[in-house]
Amino acid sequence: MTVRNLVAGDEAAVREALEDCGAFSEEEVRVAMEMVEGGLKGDYSLPAVEIDGRVRGYACIGKVPLTRSAWYIYWICVHPAMQGTGVGRILQSRIEQLVRQADGNRLVLETSGRADYDATRRFYRAAGFTEAGRIPDFYKPGDDCVVYYKALEEAADDELRDSQSATGDV
Amino acid sequence: MTVRNLVAGDEAAVREALEDCGAFSEEEVRVAMEMVEGGLKGDYSLPAVEIDGRVRGYACIGKVPLTRSAWYIYWICVHPAMQGTGVGRILQSRIEQLVRQADGNRLVLETSGRADYDATRRFYRAAGFTEAGRIPDFYKPGDDCVVYYKALEEAADDELRDSQSATGDV
Repeated sequence: MTVRNLVAGDEAAVREALEDCGAFSEEEVRVAMEMVEGGLKGDYSLPAVEIDGRVRGYACIGKVPLTRSAWYIYWICVHPAMQGTGVGRILQSRIEQLVRQADGNRLVLETSGRADYDATRRFYRAAGFTEAGRIPDFYKPGDDCVVYYKALEEAADDELRDSQSATGDV
Repeated sequence: MTVRNLVAGDEAAVREALEDCGAFSEEEVRVAMEMVEGGLKGDYSLPAVEIDGRVRGYACIGKVPLTRSAWYIYWICVHPAMQGTGVGRILQSRIEQLVRQADGNRLVLETSGRADYDATRRFYRAAGFTEAGRIPDFYKPGDDCVVYYKALEEAADDELRDSQSATGDV
């Protein structure tokens, strides 16, 4: 397993993860891929996990404009074949490392309140996110937006060392 | 008083309202003006109120991607000389009219939880917005993000007539 950033050439594996995971509509996959393209040009950061030579999970994150140190997690996706294997936690840990390195200290994300997103919301709560609020029927009738945030603590010394060595690999 | 959309040539009056109202940092004014430029090219809708030949209030709104019918209010600003005169309410009413015409039925906006935004938050509550939640220290330490939403009811017949005649003026 290698933790790195997405590079040109990873697009097919990313699309496969987005399509196969079943959480995203065709329109959502289209927008997610547009943002991968944007990220490859520098608009977003694209941490990823590669397993056996193929990207199996990735996230698209970016600093929130007009905030001092808040970052959005726009997309996060793990291929269904790898779900439950800890790839999501490794990705989340890499996200926090990147955000801290950029002097960020807040993560914010929006996800669906639908029942088929229960496991996703459990994942965020287990990762230390707090529900900030809920916009009823935001995506469509019966499909609320749930807003989560997480305050990042100051990195401990050993985490800082890890993050410095990891930076060298990317 | 004329309710219309912003057009090329209104930029100086919009910048004056943004700068004079005192609510926005230099960086925020810069981003707001970039979005006015984007709106003039069709990226956003830009309802405005003109008084004595000069724009004294405007808003920047847009459909939220990947939602069926939610709209963001990105910016709304009334020149301080006109605050308390009902310009904000007229602007709000025009926003709702535009969103309904575009088959939208949800408004969402984010604003600051700071004390100097008390009047702003009172305005939104009076306009029928509900607080969905709050992200602590989002903008900077001590400066929360407050998320508001408003569900738009189906327009009554007389409102529809108003909106049709107003459309003709724009």
